[in-house]
Parts: sequence; C-alpha cells; structure tokens
Amino acid sequence: MPSCVVARRVHFNAAHRLHNPRQSDQWNRDTFGKCNLPNYHGHNYELDILVEGEIDPDTGYVIDVGILKQLADEHIISLLDHHNLNLDVPWFAERLPSAENIARFCWEQLAPRIPQGRLRRIRLWETPRNYVDYEGL
Amino acid sequence: MPSCVVARRVHFNAAHRLHNPRQSDQWNRDTFGKCNLPNYHGHNYELDILVEGEIDPDTGYVIDVGILKQLADEHIISLLDHHNLNLDVPWFAERLPSAENIARFCWEQLAPRIPQGRLRRIRLWETPRNYVDYEGL
Amino acid sequence: MPSCVVARRVHFNAAHRLHNPRQSDQWNRDTFGKCNLPNYHGHNYELDILVEGEIDPDTGYVIDVGILKQLADEHIISLLDHHNLNLDVPWFAERLPSAENIARFCWEQLAPRIPQGRLRRIRLWETPRNYVDYEGL
Amino acid sequence: MPSCVVARRVHFNAAHRLHNPRQSDQWNRDTFGKCNLPNYHGHNYELDILVEGEIDPDTGYVIDVGILKQLADEHIISLLDHHNLNLDVPWFAERLPSAENIARFCWEQLAPRIPQGRLRRIRLWETPRNYVDYEGL
Amino acid sequence: MPSCVVARRVHFNAAHRLHNPRQSDQWNRDTFGKCNLPNYHGHNYELDILVEGEIDPDTGYVIDVGILKQLADEHIISLLDHHNLNLDVPWFAERLPSAENIARFCWEQLAPRIPQGRLRRIRLWETPRNYVDYEGL
Amino acid sequence: MPSCVVARRVHFNAAHRLHNPRQSDQWNRDTFGKCNLPNYHGHNYELDILVEGEIDPDTGYVIDVGILKQLADEHIISLLDHHNLNLDVPWFAERLPSAENIARFCWEQLAPRIPQGRLRRIRLWETPRNYVDYEGL
Repeated sequence: MPSCVVARRVHFNAAHRLHNPRQSDQWNRDTFGKCNLPNYHGHNYELDILVEGEIDPDTGYVIDVGILKQLADEHIISLLDHHNLNLDVPWFAERLPSAENIARFCWEQLAPRIPQGRLRRIRLWETPRNYVDYEGL
Repeated sequence: MPSCVVARRVHFNAAHRLHNPRQSDQWNRDTFGKCNLPNYHGHNYELDILVEGEIDPDTGYVIDVGILKQLADEHIISLLDHHNLNLDVPWFAERLPSAENIARFCWEQLAPRIPQGRLRRIRLWETPRNYVDYEGL
Repeated sequence: MPSCVVARRVHFNAAHRLHNPRQSDQWNRDTFGKCNLPNYHGHNYELDILVEGEIDPDTGYVIDVGILKQLADEHIISLLDHHNLNLDVPWFAERLPSAENIARFCWEQLAPRIPQGRLRRIRLWETPRNYVDYEGL
Repeated sequence: MPSCVVARRVHFNAAHRLHNPRQSDQWNRDTFGKCNLPNYHGHNYELDILVEGEIDPDTGYVIDVGILKQLADEHIISLLDHHNLNLDVPWFAERLPSAENIARFCWEQLAPRIPQGRLRRIRLWETPRNYVDYEGL
Repeated sequence: MPSCVVARRVHFNAAHRLHNPRQSDQWNRDTFGKCNLPNYHGHNYELDILVEGEIDPDTGYVIDVGILKQLADEHIISLLDHHNLNLDVPWFAERLPSAENIARFCWEQLAPRIPQGRLRRIRLWETPRNYVDYEGL
Repeated sequence: MPSCVVARRVHFNAAHRLHNPRQSDQWNRDTFGKCNLPNYHGHNYELDILVEGEIDPDTGYVIDVGILKQLADEHIISLLDHHNLNLDVPWFAERLPSAENIARFCWEQLAPRIPQGRLRRIRLWETPRNYVDYEGL
C-alpha cells in the first residue's frame, strides 16, 4: 500500500534548565555546561506532528491538519508555551527537559488522541541547528 | 548496502478549493471551512523529489538532479504552475486537490519516468507549516 | 533621537489573476504571461507590518505586537485569507491585485488604525523570492 | 557617495519575563498576558549587526565580519546567552527585557567599540515572526 | 509621495579567494585567515535586487520582476554562476572579490539597464549569517 | 522500543568541480555542464548529523549534541571548510566531489567515532534546493 504522512508545524516558547538533582553540582556543570546555568534560558520550539494513514476519498485528507493544530493547542501548547518546563510542567518533575524528553512528552500527549490515521513521528526543533525525531510505540 | 537518496526541490504556485460535489454544501462547509470558500485560494507549493540508488562511480551521482528538474518541469510544473487545480487539471476532476492528493499526483507523474535509481518519496509543502510525504508502490 | 521599529509577520493564502479589463486580451497575455491565465493561481503571502516609535519605559514596547496581530486579523487577514482577490475584495475591482497593490491595500487598511507609534512600512512577500516594500504618506 | 552596509548575524538563547515592578500585578497581567507568567519563558534570538562605511580597497571590506563576531561574542553573547535577562543582566534591573530594549542594549554595547565604519542598525529577531530594528545616536 | 520598492531574489554559486597581490603573503594570511587559503572556497550567493518607483495603474507593477530576473540572468548570473570570481571575471582582476565588492559589481551591471523605476539597493547574502547592502550613486 | 534520533546541523563553505579524469573532456562537459567549468565553483554546505539511541535517564540525552559538534569540527569541518575539495582533500583524489560522495565522506569520518548511540543518517544540503541523505553500513 502507498504511504501518506501529513505534518503540521506548531510553535511554542519556553524556558528550561538542564539539572539532575540526583547528581552533584560539579557533575551537572561538567555534563550540561551553559545549559546548567541556574536561572534558566529558553528557546523558540518548532514542533512537527506527523500522522500516517490512507487518503480518505471523501476529503482528500489523511487527517484534517486543523485537528492536529487543535489537539496540539489543547494538549501541548497550552501546557508548555510561555512556561518554565522545570517549574510549571509536572511531567518534567522527574525527567530532564532535554529536547529528547520534550519530544517524548509531545508524543505521549498526542498518541492517545489522534482520531484517525496514526501518529508516526514527532520532530522537535530546539534551535534552527538542533532537532530531535521521536517515534513511540 | 548503504542507502543514498538525492532530493531536488522545485516550486509552483496554484489556486485550488476543497469541495466534494458528491456531498452537500453544508457538509463541505463543515468539513473544509475556509478551504471551501467558493472562489478559490492558493499556495506557493514547494515540492521535494527524492530518488534512491547507488552512487555511480563515473559521475558521483545517484541521479543528475538536473534530470529531476527537467522531469518535474515537463510533467508537473507545466501542468500545475499558475493554474487552478480544480478547473485546469483533469486528474483532479474526480479527486479533491488536497496536499495529500497533489503529492500523489506528483508521484504518479514521475514514478514511471525516473530513469535510474528509484523514486523514493514526494514531499509537498503547502505552506511553511504544513507538508505531506507520499511514497507510492 | 534613536529610532526603534517593531515588526510583526502575519500570513494569508489567496488566489489572484493579473488581468486589466481596459486592455486587449493580447496585451494582457503579453504583459502578464502565466499570471494572466484565466482560472487564477495563488500564493502564501507573508506580510511584515513595521511600526516606529519611542520605547515606552512602562512596557518596554514601541507597540504591543499583539495589537498589530489583532489589527491585521480584523482588517487584512479576515478580508484576504483564503479568498480570491479579484472576485472577493472590492478594493481590487478597479486595481490589479499585484504584490505592489496588495501592499498598498494593507497600508491603507492599517495606517488609520495604528494606535501608538506610526506605521512605517509594509513588506509583502509574494513568494520566497519576490517581495515589495510600501511606505505610504 | 555610494553606501555600503555589512551585516553579521549571531545567535543566543535566553529566558525572560515581562513584569514592571512599579505597576500592580493586575496591570502586568493585563498588559503582558502570557509574557508575564511568573517563571519565565525564552527565545532563540537572532541578532543582525549592520555596519556602514566605505569599502577599503586593500581588503575589499567595510569591516571584517570576523571582528563583528568577536565583539558580539565578548560584549553581547557572553552576557546574554543561556542566561536569564531579568535575573542575570544588571542592565535590565531597571528596564523591561522586551525585544526593543534588548536591541537597545546590543546597540549600547557595540556602538563605542566598532573600530572602523559606523554601527548603522541592530536587528533583533525574537521569533521568526517578530523583530525589532534599533538605530541609536 | 508614497514609496514602493519591489525586490527579486536570484541565486548563483561561485568560488573565490581573498588575496591582495600588492601585499605580502603574511599580511594576507593575517588579514583574511581561512578566506586566504590558496585553492579557493565558495558560496551559494543569494542576491536581492530592489527597484523603486511609482505603481503603474495599467499593470499594478513598479517593474515586472520577470524583467529583473532576465537582466540578472544576462548581466550577472551568466558571468558569475559556477565560475571562479578571481580567475574568470575580469572586473575582479583589480579588486578583491569580497561580498562588498560583489554587491558593487552587481550594482554596476544593473544600474544602467533598469528600464523603468530606479535601482534602489543590492542586497547580497554570502552565507545565511552574512550579507551586504549596496546603494550606488 | 521507541526510537529517538538527535540531529545537529553544522556548516562549511568549499569549492569543487565535477570532472572525471578517466573520461574525455567532451564526456565531462556533456555530463556535468556548468559543474565541469575548469576553475571551480562553490557552495555553503549545511550538514545534518543524525544519531539514534535510547534516552539516558541521567542526562535526558541520546547524545550530547556538543559532542557531535566537536566531532564534526575535528573530522569534517577542519578538513573541508574554506578548502577546495578536489585539490585539498585526499579522499576525493579518486572520487568525484558530488553531494552524494561528500555525504559518504562525512559518514565515513564520523561513524567510527560516535561514542554512544549510533550514527543513523547524514543529510547534506548543497544548496537550499538540493540535498542528499546517506546511510552507511
């Protein structure tokens, strides 16, 4: 069968800091460098949501990308945008807010809610020179 | 064996409208929203053509991307660029001109004509925030 | 005095056709080429709205770019987005919907409504390789 | 005389929050919305440094952009990158860290140190849809 | 009077090296660093051509950007694209092929040939992080 | 198991020429066109390095992208940046410096040195409209 994947890009801004409280301050500085600075820094994140499926002959759609935008707004953007990932988002209480884990968070928020088709991949751009592809189970 | 894929990006501008004549006007408005407005709207489409193959030791090429450009010009750009997909392109007489179906159209135009290597994927950007990956048989 | 200009980029998609009904069909074809094709084509327009003024010490703003977004939504995007400029927008009944004139339209819609600071420039991208700067009176 | 301006783009990531301590919490929430959320958010800032001057016939340069990079690294990037503008940068103790004021800060850091030519403009991108042009005295 | 400027972006790839034969090798290495390496390096140049004028009510154009493309193809692209600026372009026999001078070359090639309106500015991107604005007499 | 891939983009500028010395001059001109011009041309190359692996719960990383940057600087950028691929890089003495082969070179330089995770793909952009994906063994 042919494969068709649709992608919708959404945007959020957030602050974060990489710091593992189970390790020493020295380990944190050595491991994370500037990303460990105490008062946070931040990024303009761009998030691509990729959904695979058959093309519905009635709509021409694999999925309406407006639905992807709405799901992202409700379950990702409203929680992360203009927030501090370390302080404001409980999911990161026990996990480092690295690009890898943010992508995984986005996957876990969306995967159970994709109504038709199938979530195929999350691509998260942390900067224009750094991105992560996450594909969950 | 190693895998090598070359991609060439081409560009076209077109008008379209999403409207399924087998459904009621109300269904069309509910399903397609602004994309169903009667007098068409349009996009700057960016199309990536990805071809896989071995690297020819005589040329260093999987395929000359100039050939991809020429095939795209002849079999895609000349038919779609500055046209109305609904009114001017017979292939869309029976299909919605969604990004998904435009990508499929591009696949069907190119797949039988790729001389060496093998068409691997069509990526069609409808806007900078919305794209489709299509891989036919 | 120092000069400070803030810019907000907004987006719309529209269909148009370049055709001057006061001239012959031949003149129109010779002058506009593919842009004169009868059934319209379209673009993803990016619009930069630039406003100049002093930095308010209470807000740090020349103008809240959220206000620019709101004014653009109400007076530009709602009228142009997903519309046919020739058929749906009365302002273009007597004017060609060229990038130059669309930029002028945006200027005329916004200039009387900029609450603080001063509209300095409209930059309209018709494609990633073609833009217009318009500065009205 | 002809005019020649060279521009060098540099990058930094930072956290900030818009909050005016001389105003009430309600005023701050009403004025800054999400940008006032208490735990900071952040951005990938792109900074263009524009310097004007004559072309030196011995070098072909108005100014070596490597010098602009070095000055930016020493007097801007080292102070702002991966920092919290509100907490870590004394210049913002009395000023809101809006894009406008960050651009002004960059101007004030660089203007006295540009060795040849003349600082003409600072362009600061806060997001891909929002930028500021600052030209000091 | 209102001001309207249209811009057309064109592209070329070229090799160059910064080396002033009137200076010592040591001076050249100190001044140009990696850009002085003997066997050339190269860039994907993006060139914006900006032309100012009144909007012609018959066409909606300040100038047909197709004419700008054609002039650029004939008088710039055909001479620079896929060439070595130092060895292949006589204009650079006596001038360093810096971004500044390439912009000036483009100005001198185009200024006498702009049929309506008026050449306002040449913007030359040497890399995505480095550009030059040139405005001749 | 979930899949997580991190990507780091790096940049270099280089000159090259496509010419196969085992073939006639006529064959080279017919095959490579402008890319065969004798005095070289050049590009701004963008290189994406993609590494796959599990997310380390102590760091949140698949791999520290700073390590990818460092490996790229040492084993790719220092050899290719501001160089002539044909004349300065021994690996290309027997191979055409096409985008395909440059991507393969980058793979061979990095694959043995990726300390954790696993090199998954090299994506090399030769121009904004032309890229190659290479996945070695």
